[in-house]
Amino acid sequence: MRGKHACKMVMNNIFLNAIQKQPVPYTPIWMMRQAGRYLPEYRATREKAGSFLKLCKTPELACEVTLQPIERFGFDAAILFSDILTIPDAMGLGLEFIEGEGPRFQKKLASATDIVNLPIPDPERELRYVPDTIRLLKKELTVPLIGFAGSPWTIASYMLEGGSPGDFKQSKTLLYNQPELLHRLLYTLSQAITLYLQAQIAAGVDTVMLFDSWGGALTESAYREFSFAYMQEIIHNLRAHHPTIPVILFSKGSGPWLDLLQTSAAQVIGLDWQTPIHQARKVLGATHALQGNLDPAILRASDTAIEREVKKILADYGTGSGHIFNLGHGITPDIAPEKVAHLVHIVKHLTQQGA
Amino acid sequence: MRGKHACKMVMNNIFLNAIQKQPVPYTPIWMMRQAGRYLPEYRATREKAGSFLKLCKTPELACEVTLQPIERFGFDAAILFSDILTIPDAMGLGLEFIEGEGPRFQKKLASATDIVNLPIPDPERELRYVPDTIRLLKKELTVPLIGFAGSPWTIASYMLEGGSPGDFKQSKTLLYNQPELLHRLLYTLSQAITLYLQAQIAAGVDTVMLFDSWGGALTESAYREFSFAYMQEIIHNLRAHHPTIPVILFSKGSGPWLDLLQTSAAQVIGLDWQTPIHQARKVLGATHALQGNLDPAILRASDTAIEREVKKILADYGTGSGHIFNLGHGITPDIAPEKVAHLVHIVKHLTQQGA
Repeated sequence: MRGKHACKMVMNNIFLNAIQKQPVPYTPIWMMRQAGRYLPEYRATREKAGSFLKLCKTPELACEVTLQPIERFGFDAAILFSDILTIPDAMGLGLEFIEGEGPRFQKKLASATDIVNLPIPDPERELRYVPDTIRLLKKELTVPLIGFAGSPWTIASYMLEGGSPGDFKQSKTLLYNQPELLHRLLYTLSQAITLYLQAQIAAGVDTVMLFDSWGGALTESAYREFSFAYMQEIIHNLRAHHPTIPVILFSKGSGPWLDLLQTSAAQVIGLDWQTPIHQARKVLGATHALQGNLDPAILRASDTAIEREVKKILADYGTGSGHIFNLGHGITPDIAPEKVAHLVHIVKHLTQQGA
Repeated sequence: MRGKHACKMVMNNIFLNAIQKQPVPYTPIWMMRQAGRYLPEYRATREKAGSFLKLCKTPELACEVTLQPIERFGFDAAILFSDILTIPDAMGLGLEFIEGEGPRFQKKLASATDIVNLPIPDPERELRYVPDTIRLLKKELTVPLIGFAGSPWTIASYMLEGGSPGDFKQSKTLLYNQPELLHRLLYTLSQAITLYLQAQIAAGVDTVMLFDSWGGALTESAYREFSFAYMQEIIHNLRAHHPTIPVILFSKGSGPWLDLLQTSAAQVIGLDWQTPIHQARKVLGATHALQGNLDPAILRASDTAIEREVKKILADYGTGSGHIFNLGHGITPDIAPEKVAHLVHIVKHLTQQGA
């Protein structure tokens, strides 16, 4: 962290300007999971914390790891270090992270009663560590801060399966057999997520992102009804209180449904690497800014290969503002930090106006 | 198996007519993995064989399990019981199936020399159990028989990773760093696959299907260059010898690339459940028949739910021939056979002409 007495520097607003499709000096860049295991300084802080969840829940440490990639690489946005499953944890499901296995709940939703009785957490109480982290971060950051939450469908699928959804056995059976009960759960989650994001905004985030990791596991009509509709609802609710807060929507696997995404109330659509950015711009370009979409696997390749693929995406997007460079998914733990430094350098270099 | 002395019945050509978009009395149906673990009679034969691979390699038993779902459900097509990894096995990589883990190779491709030295198997020698199974099947079947192979990219990714590709660490690094070496491997595999499918056709299959399970893990441009191009090559090579053999192409995850699929030399495009069939028909309907695309998870739901989703797909496809009903992916082992019987019944019932 920067020293407490450092002067606050001028804010880098390139990321926020790109969201509004205002002219920018270069294409801004940040990376999903930019604060993560590929960074030695992250691993050191995590060790200090004792566990991933402890790291999320300790504002000083969560703040520290959020800042690390900004300081090392000069990203144009920071993203709150947290997890999409903090809400079900605060609802009492007991979140654990098993090494090499991913998230697991001590309790999973097994009955209608479980669903009906779910409490809606007060973000300033049960989730206070999140706004606390944001408040710390806002004192330190000179780039915009992205808050986030999982989408209702994505969080619901973890809660119903008791961990990583795998084949969606419980969640899809509920979806097809008892859609009203799933709607009840999604409605509760939407309320909780809205409050959670409102608290993040009140604490100071400059934009919020919805991570719909599992929307793409659905059919288009199920996506529309059980995932997209609730994200629309959340965005409309946020707007009622914060009319100008920008929202980024990322539904992994939604490439076949660009027409539907075009109706999203979000300002920015995140793209996985399978969605051709030229096609996304054709369908969404008049209404939305686009974020993405380098295949994270490219970061294992040579600098030359990385440069070639970056150029392809930049050419595919075309000219004009409204592009936020990012990966099409989170960076993996095996990537060398030097590759990320190279990526940031060439994106800025290649897009520099007048360069 | 039917008794050896039974009269050969009249051939059910509804599936082949649908491929040609000829009028059909009802929408034909078959299912990916229709001969599989969800069937008690399959589990019994597999136990008799001792292992999955032994089952593939014993023509009498492979024939037996291929016929089981036809006899039980009255599907309109049979698919050869085999595996997409028989070719690398015949190339000497030593295929094993570890219970609960999936396929694994004793030897994986680790160097350029490994790739350059790969032999092309003679399908009537090292893979003879496959044409032998087909020859047995052709004496028994009264529905068309589908032969198949994995796509070059899909098989290559298993060979490079030594098993299920997971995060494609080796294969994508090769793709980005040494594309020429990957092209060399894909070219060898294309030759092997062409010979293999030619042998299947010579032995009697009525159509062939290319399973490109992992094409959808690529970007559009990598898919075009490293997967689609080789499948085109294979189809053109097959046509040179068998000008009328129909080909079905299934690239899981290719929903964002319908425009590219429209240029496929295959007659039929298989669709995963994420690709809206109405949109696929709009782009591909003039040139291709379509196969799919029920979410296999629906088979865990109630009969009413299954019927509702089937109706949705039928309405989305619209009127006219050219639709082959199928799942959007393979059936899972936990499905009750009664659900499949219900699915077959309602598809035939709902699409019966004049019904």
